[in-house]
Amino acid sequence: MSIELRNRLFDQLDQLVLIDPHTHINALDPSSHTLADILGYHYYTELAHSAGMPKDKIEEEGISPKEKVGRLIENLGPITNTIQYSWFIEMAQKLLDFEGDTIDVSNWESFYDSAEEKMSADSWTDTVFSKSRLESVFLTNDFDDPLEGFDTTKYIPCLRTDDLVFHLTNPRTKVRLYEATDVDVSDVASARQAIGKLFEHFVSNNAKACAISLPPTFAPVKVSDARANTALSNVLSQGLSTDEDDQRAVSNFIFWTLAENCQERKLPFDLMIGVNRKVFPEGVFQGQDLYDSRVSLIQYKELLNAFPDVTFPISVLASVTNQELVSYSWIFPNVVANGHWWYSNTPTYIQQDCASRLEAIPRTKQIGYYSDMYKMEFALPKFAMYKRILAKVLAENFVIDRNWSEESAVELGTQLLRGNVETIFNVGN
Amino acid sequence: MSIELRNRLFDQLDQLVLIDPHTHINALDPSSHTLADILGYHYYTELAHSAGMPKDKIEEEGISPKEKVGRLIENLGPITNTIQYSWFIEMAQKLLDFEGDTIDVSNWESFYDSAEEKMSADSWTDTVFSKSRLESVFLTNDFDDPLEGFDTTKYIPCLRTDDLVFHLTNPRTKVRLYEATDVDVSDVASARQAIGKLFEHFVSNNAKACAISLPPTFAPVKVSDARANTALSNVLSQGLSTDEDDQRAVSNFIFWTLAENCQERKLPFDLMIGVNRKVFPEGVFQGQDLYDSRVSLIQYKELLNAFPDVTFPISVLASVTNQELVSYSWIFPNVVANGHWWYSNTPTYIQQDCASRLEAIPRTKQIGYYSDMYKMEFALPKFAMYKRILAKVLAENFVIDRNWSEESAVELGTQLLRGNVETIFNVGN
Amino acid sequence: MSIELRNRLFDQLDQLVLIDPHTHINALDPSSHTLADILGYHYYTELAHSAGMPKDKIEEEGISPKEKVGRLIENLGPITNTIQYSWFIEMAQKLLDFEGDTIDVSNWESFYDSAEEKMSADSWTDTVFSKSRLESVFLTNDFDDPLEGFDTTKYIPCLRTDDLVFHLTNPRTKVRLYEATDVDVSDVASARQAIGKLFEHFVSNNAKACAISLPPTFAPVKVSDARANTALSNVLSQGLSTDEDDQRAVSNFIFWTLAENCQERKLPFDLMIGVNRKVFPEGVFQGQDLYDSRVSLIQYKELLNAFPDVTFPISVLASVTNQELVSYSWIFPNVVANGHWWYSNTPTYIQQDCASRLEAIPRTKQIGYYSDMYKMEFALPKFAMYKRILAKVLAENFVIDRNWSEESAVELGTQLLRGNVETIFNVGN
Repeated sequence: MSIELRNRLFDQLDQLVLIDPHTHINALDPSSHTLADILGYHYYTELAHSAGMPKDKIEEEGISPKEKVGRLIENLGPITNTIQYSWFIEMAQKLLDFEGDTIDVSNWESFYDSAEEKMSADSWTDTVFSKSRLESVFLTNDFDDPLEGFDTTKYIPCLRTDDLVFHLTNPRTKVRLYEATDVDVSDVASARQAIGKLFEHFVSNNAKACAISLPPTFAPVKVSDARANTALSNVLSQGLSTDEDDQRAVSNFIFWTLAENCQERKLPFDLMIGVNRKVFPEGVFQGQDLYDSRVSLIQYKELLNAFPDVTFPISVLASVTNQELVSYSWIFPNVVANGHWWYSNTPTYIQQDCASRLEAIPRTKQIGYYSDMYKMEFALPKFAMYKRILAKVLAENFVIDRNWSEESAVELGTQLLRGNVETIFNVGN
Repeated sequence: MSIELRNRLFDQLDQLVLIDPHTHINALDPSSHTLADILGYHYYTELAHSAGMPKDKIEEEGISPKEKVGRLIENLGPITNTIQYSWFIEMAQKLLDFEGDTIDVSNWESFYDSAEEKMSADSWTDTVFSKSRLESVFLTNDFDDPLEGFDTTKYIPCLRTDDLVFHLTNPRTKVRLYEATDVDVSDVASARQAIGKLFEHFVSNNAKACAISLPPTFAPVKVSDARANTALSNVLSQGLSTDEDDQRAVSNFIFWTLAENCQERKLPFDLMIGVNRKVFPEGVFQGQDLYDSRVSLIQYKELLNAFPDVTFPISVLASVTNQELVSYSWIFPNVVANGHWWYSNTPTYIQQDCASRLEAIPRTKQIGYYSDMYKMEFALPKFAMYKRILAKVLAENFVIDRNWSEESAVELGTQLLRGNVETIFNVGN
Repeated sequence: MSIELRNRLFDQLDQLVLIDPHTHINALDPSSHTLADILGYHYYTELAHSAGMPKDKIEEEGISPKEKVGRLIENLGPITNTIQYSWFIEMAQKLLDFEGDTIDVSNWESFYDSAEEKMSADSWTDTVFSKSRLESVFLTNDFDDPLEGFDTTKYIPCLRTDDLVFHLTNPRTKVRLYEATDVDVSDVASARQAIGKLFEHFVSNNAKACAISLPPTFAPVKVSDARANTALSNVLSQGLSTDEDDQRAVSNFIFWTLAENCQERKLPFDLMIGVNRKVFPEGVFQGQDLYDSRVSLIQYKELLNAFPDVTFPISVLASVTNQELVSYSWIFPNVVANGHWWYSNTPTYIQQDCASRLEAIPRTKQIGYYSDMYKMEFALPKFAMYKRILAKVLAENFVIDRNWSEESAVELGTQLLRGNVETIFNVGN
């Protein structure tokens, strides 16, 4: 009974037209040209590498897309169990008319060719949007992105700020900042001015969020202007050799300034908490980051109290932090639980995390899912995975355990998938 | 099949008459007078606040109970998904004859009036006890509670000690201690004498437990009398400006003295581990506390070894600490796993935590549940929630997965719900 | 439907002949002689002790095996709910022809006698191997084990190294090292020579792994030879009074040297991460260790990067570390997820941990289970427990949720149970 029920709920949730509130789509080149764009996604390269494929076979310069795909296909046998592999198959079936359950050395080449043909159609991106029932997607834009050449209501800008907070030690960042704002950052005042200009540029181009990913050690505090001035001066002159206290003070100052701008511009500030970069430096591209799960939202206490008018959609990297996210969203009006990020974006963790959120966070304060994709083709299988789990949780924990009607369950699911994206980010409504 | 099985097990567990081993009931005013006493519970005010209702609308001085309820009802739409909202509806249906599944602006007022009428009956508290199948409840008494004016076999005293351990910096605590004991605490000897008198007072009034809630940083150690004397002198004279080391030494000394008294009086010492107070100072009353889940029971190693004859029923605030609770209860004879506390008192976490306890802790060393309630009406829906989950775990993990008979499963559930409360706290048998 | 499906999958997995990749079997005395060898297992003594049985009744010197069993049986009532008790009953039924579900004071004595008779047969060990469908088992050998007198293809040596890394402060360790290698360790060079000889001895006797258990605070780093020399000299001369920095430097030096030898000899290095020893010193034999779950695999970052050619099968003690294990196995080619260890070896944690591994770690990089047993009789019920959970996960998360065929699900289970043990440890194929 429960399986038919799940299927009925899924079918209704699957009809919804969605807005994807966090992706890494390039608005000027949103969808794939060949399967190399699909299998080049770090989930496949890193899993193939982990399973034994040498990095230089994966990332050899100058090989053709087809050669790359052929090499990867040969090495996917060890990952056929993974949910990531299932995304590939579902996408192949639903978007590229692949028939069958396995793509391997015996059949990949003809599929490669037919996929390339489909992807070469001018209408391919539109086809993907339509088959995926997507209306628009949030981008992840560098702070110096001109935001030109695309429809910002379909590809919604989001100001990504990791470089500003953590990489002012890199002289290139200061140059990029100057080129983007005409402000030569040398002190607190000019830094504020430059950041203000970035926000102005983004907001006037329909940006609907500011975002950043944060290491587990980060614990933002307000620093005085005097302290920030000294630290900034050292960071700008000494770069990576600046002492850690000064680097931290600059990160804190910039981060706090971002929050002030979010407040002024009424922009939600997406916090993606918990990643350690380059833990495995010999890993493939984008397959080098991991984490220390010993992080707590208590580190954000001062921030959350200082900015009651800023909405903070928070993602946590490790499922062990999810209960804190539930509790902080339940207590703090400005905290929203946001999707299922990266290493927690697998069914077992999604189910546990989704269920615990649904029963204790106000229904208006949960964003069900975002795809985090780099190419448009991934929205369909990733959202499908989530919707199946959501349907399972609604069926078992609400309809069966709590006697909810199916209609009420679908309403709750709809709010997580669509309604809250509209109200929290002020889009699409 | 599993659902009918769960229901059969639930129906049997639901017949039991229970003793609630931890509540915040006021024995002189145990049940509600209007729905304002129900919806004034922090679970509703904090969730309504989190969902956007201004604090000053919730806590405005001088508004009538009915006005307060009307305002809250208007703001419960965003929390209809929560398990806390379901407690309200189930209580309304089972105790107050409400018909329907939703209480909102369209129907609340007549329900308010009919509830008030029912609650005004002299027999209301008895009715609630009877419909909830409760025999008695443990209280949470301030150390200076006179414990007079009520039946201590029905309202069982419990000595709550947070103020003694953590707030001797507050001059008022010393005064209260003097008023309660006639001892003017100035050093280790007088502190011991005063605390001894408190225990004497409580035990002679049928107290069956000592209890305390503890921050995640607390790691009790024994301090020497000399160290304690110096620290105590500073804390009593300098209050909150005393240096942290001294404050910690005093907390340790008092805490250790409490454990010594528990040993002498054969009183279980309830430890509720993991709460950070006032993380969100602008939150509503009782809706300001959160936690850092990075806590370990290893912090209690010295204590657990030093007091082998004291039973420590331990509650943990975060579900990520539950496995340690399972393991420590499995190894230490004096550790008992106690209920599902606060932020872990929601179905997904209860199910996981309950199941993992049932399969690895001796059956005699687990207290299934306590309500933690402030008003008697909450026992029914909270225990009902727990009993449904317990029935599910017994059905799936014991009857189905391990081929237990239904009779044996009900026996195990009965022991968790009733038998162990009797044996561990020496009550009701 | 799901239950019949689980049973079908279990029945197929249960046919497999297995290699147990981690046990504490004594190859010269592998199976039990009486039920005292069974109930003397720390799982029973520690649970009986935890439930109130005095340590001196359990460990009294000079009592007969039968007396010991009689005393323990009297005290197992409080642990009949535990999964460990179910191992005892299943073993009794499947290996010792016990009929019934309970062994208690009413029936234990005749069962004791019939068990003793069966166990006294010369063929008893062979019978246990055969009924358990086991082909061979890995041992846990002290570094100075002569590895003589047994068939090393059936009882496969594994070099256990805790003493070398953590107990060189004990003069006896140095003596044992000398006796085993003829090398008098006094500095880095002689230590390297001695350790090289140990590896030579083990590898030439068919050892297939090196193994160690590690406390949560351990974070291996490479130390210079100069630093190691000073530290080693102090540790060897001052023993336990050596300062902690020196002790840590020696542990790091030895640990790193082990990894170098694993690299040279192509031996997997089993890391069992997270145990604190003697947390409860008054506990029964082997029932004194617990843990601090605040540990992270980030502590092993330097090691995992330094030895890309060494395979590290990693076990974590606490289920809250399992997601890190999943993520690190997914990224690092040299990390393998290994079994379900000790306090995480109970059904609720196994199910969650197993499911999350199966969907995100390459299928070639997961070792399903090891028994960790001290006596051969435990393989059957422990593996049966695991296979039931594995069958449940494959049924629900793969066949039902992801539309896998039953055949594919059984293939995946087979790989976890048998295939990966062969390929990762280079045995049995």
